[in-house]
Amino acid sequence: MSDEFDHSEAQPDSATEGDYSISRRDIAAILYSVDANDQAKLIELMEPLHAADIADLLEQLNPYDRRRLVRLYDREFDGDILSELEEGLREEIIRVLSPEVLAEAVRELDSDDVVDLVEDLDEPQQEAILDALEDSDRVAVEQALAYPETSAGRLMQREVVVAPDHWTVGEAIDFLRKAEELPEQFYHVVLVDPRIHPVGNVTLGKLMSSRRNVPLTEIVEDVFQVIPVLQDEADVAYAFNQYHLISAPVVDEDNRLVGVITIDDAMAVLDEEHEEDILRLAGVGDEASLTDTIFEAAKGRALWLFVNLLTAILASLVIDMFAETINQMVALAVLMPIVASMGGNAGTQTMTVAVRALATRDLTAQNAMRVVLREVSVGALNGLIFGGTMALVVALWFGVPMLALVIGLAMLFTQIAAALGGIVIPMALDRAGIDPALASGPFVTTVTDVVGFFAFLGLAASVLM
Amino acid sequence: MSDEFDHSEAQPDSATEGDYSISRRDIAAILYSVDANDQAKLIELMEPLHAADIADLLEQLNPYDRRRLVRLYDREFDGDILSELEEGLREEIIRVLSPEVLAEAVRELDSDDVVDLVEDLDEPQQEAILDALEDSDRVAVEQALAYPETSAGRLMQREVVVAPDHWTVGEAIDFLRKAEELPEQFYHVVLVDPRIHPVGNVTLGKLMSSRRNVPLTEIVEDVFQVIPVLQDEADVAYAFNQYHLISAPVVDEDNRLVGVITIDDAMAVLDEEHEEDILRLAGVGDEASLTDTIFEAAKGRALWLFVNLLTAILASLVIDMFAETINQMVALAVLMPIVASMGGNAGTQTMTVAVRALATRDLTAQNAMRVVLREVSVGALNGLIFGGTMALVVALWFGVPMLALVIGLAMLFTQIAAALGGIVIPMALDRAGIDPALASGPFVTTVTDVVGFFAFLGLAASVLM
Repeated sequence: MSDEFDHSEAQPDSATEGDYSISRRDIAAILYSVDANDQAKLIELMEPLHAADIADLLEQLNPYDRRRLVRLYDREFDGDILSELEEGLREEIIRVLSPEVLAEAVRELDSDDVVDLVEDLDEPQQEAILDALEDSDRVAVEQALAYPETSAGRLMQREVVVAPDHWTVGEAIDFLRKAEELPEQFYHVVLVDPRIHPVGNVTLGKLMSSRRNVPLTEIVEDVFQVIPVLQDEADVAYAFNQYHLISAPVVDEDNRLVGVITIDDAMAVLDEEHEEDILRLAGVGDEASLTDTIFEAAKGRALWLFVNLLTAILASLVIDMFAETINQMVALAVLMPIVASMGGNAGTQTMTVAVRALATRDLTAQNAMRVVLREVSVGALNGLIFGGTMALVVALWFGVPMLALVIGLAMLFTQIAAALGGIVIPMALDRAGIDPALASGPFVTTVTDVVGFFAFLGLAASVLM
Repeated sequence: MSDEFDHSEAQPDSATEGDYSISRRDIAAILYSVDANDQAKLIELMEPLHAADIADLLEQLNPYDRRRLVRLYDREFDGDILSELEEGLREEIIRVLSPEVLAEAVRELDSDDVVDLVEDLDEPQQEAILDALEDSDRVAVEQALAYPETSAGRLMQREVVVAPDHWTVGEAIDFLRKAEELPEQFYHVVLVDPRIHPVGNVTLGKLMSSRRNVPLTEIVEDVFQVIPVLQDEADVAYAFNQYHLISAPVVDEDNRLVGVITIDDAMAVLDEEHEEDILRLAGVGDEASLTDTIFEAAKGRALWLFVNLLTAILASLVIDMFAETINQMVALAVLMPIVASMGGNAGTQTMTVAVRALATRDLTAQNAMRVVLREVSVGALNGLIFGGTMALVVALWFGVPMLALVIGLAMLFTQIAAALGGIVIPMALDRAGIDPALASGPFVTTVTDVVGFFAFLGLAASVLM
């Protein structure tokens, strides 16, 4: 029975609340043992924790405590903790670990985890880790690193349980029972033809529950997808999600089996892709993590703010064209941010729906026209509602009926433009091969700001003056 | 050998590009067969398609073609297609299917898939489907529906492969080989003590590769998490992602085994949670799907736009306080949207990082103070950079040094306020039990707009007038 189980049974209540994090009391006790330099106590306290929780704990400590904890924990430091750490912190922790501890930690890991670990490290750290590996593992890692970044080749593990496609259930079971070494985790036996092309997956459960004389080809899974080794990991994750795959064989250009990808790796990629989308849509860039330094974080965000500054200045130039009009009626200055702000929000809404639908491949050439029409209709409808509302508000507030008409019409135009920009811009960027999550925002904002100010002030200039 | 395999081998090139969608040519052929009312041809064309792809195809067709296709496809319509359809469309399709086809379709499904299918349907449709099930399945579905929505009880399947914890590998293998019926997909044998408390998981692979006389308790997985049946599905997904679980036993209040959740269900929940976060952050609400009607979509978005309208009017009231000042210097009206827009963007950036960090539980009581300080520092740094830049731009554009000073300082203040609001508001909402993704936006926008206009116009009024 494992330690984790004792742990989970000891805290049934906190588990019900879904509180998988370490309690504040436990953290305090751990930090106290670090302060007291009490290695035995620290090891005792860390014993029940999963590597993922230890990694989270390290991420939440300040750098000083983090260093002291890692040094005191010393030889107990597990390779899995390194795997679980976010990229930014890995380099820091690797620098803190003594070469012997680091070597032992990485030697415990599967080769695909080592690949994941070293691929973002700088040359000297990468070398240090590769040197720590046994020769066969080192070769496996280096071969994986030879595949392009974010390709299936980087994601796969090379250990595959294979059976010739002419075998029966009995032969497969006997083979498995006699095998010297099987991978830590595997869910399928991959059937291959004589040219090592994968032709089907047999689940272990199906194998277990079939009679010995049944040919393996009769119990293959209905759904079978092979993953080309150069396929991008985002597409791999999509295939796993779309077809509910548990594991899928990876093939080279000649359709020969070279490895296997399992669902846990695909789930991790899916999680990363989502994080990337959400942060890119908000203009935060890719490197945002809570352990980034102030300068790293400021730099990542400054790029988007700079683009936004250009957009905002462009909008100001539009306002400047109507400075004379505003001078004659200051109410225009009071009201114009409402038009632009409502347009910006509607644009963001449509853009987010579009980016998301493109990512999930729900928005395709097949339904593009219909979706654009739908979005413009939604924009027009909300434009009527909010244009009408604002017209009423302005009529009551300023008592100038023509001003009410102007803001109502301007809001209607802007909502339609926001909808059109919000759907067409991401689609165009996607077709041009640019990530719509990353680049749509500035374009959409420009459209809504410029149209918003131009429509409102332009209408005001021609109707009211 | 399955049809899917022929299909995937037939299109190796498109697979390399990660193009898992159906080609336009195939869609055209399918629609042509529908137009020609050629059922044999339609069935032949649909044969190689995965249920998930058929569901995607239906989502992308217009309602008229969709209805005709479903009617012509008739008895071939699979329960899995219903499972894969997005919620909004399911009701439409269920109405189109004849009662016999519907009954046959749902009878093929596992009970957990039926639960997923019926839980969002309205009463009469739900009844129609439950009536179509065999009695034992119907009971299983009704028991699952008795658990709260979005609970682990809804997510789990009831068929579990169990072994007493005193068994050996040999006994377990003999039991599995003799079992009449095993679940379609299973990855672990769950060990239970005499009171049916789960005490460990044994993978089928480990079982296969261990000697017959080894006790099962010696080969249990290191990581073992039990899921309380009332736990929220979001927490279940978090546990699967955090601890890399493949399947986990579900227990009732007395810690007795009642079912099992597998990673593919957890992956689907994770995907939904992400979608929810991304759409809520953009103020689109929860029901956005491309097949929603114009009215549904407009309604979902109008709520957020309405809140934004109140915010924008509040900001306008601030501007109105300084109408006299603007009257004396129209340049203020030209420049003020820049201050507010830059503040709004910085606020959105910080807010998104905060919401994301709360969702992944990276932002905790342990590091809250440090993260707030970091965000404010980032805001101050970017405030200095962009305040300085704008001061320079304004000095050159308008040639009024004091106006340059005013906008520089106002931008600095606003960037700091945006950072503070962007981090503190989501944290406060989260602590109050409100989803920060849903509610942070309006509050943060209010802060950045009000502070932006107030700082800029207030400073201008006191310094320039």
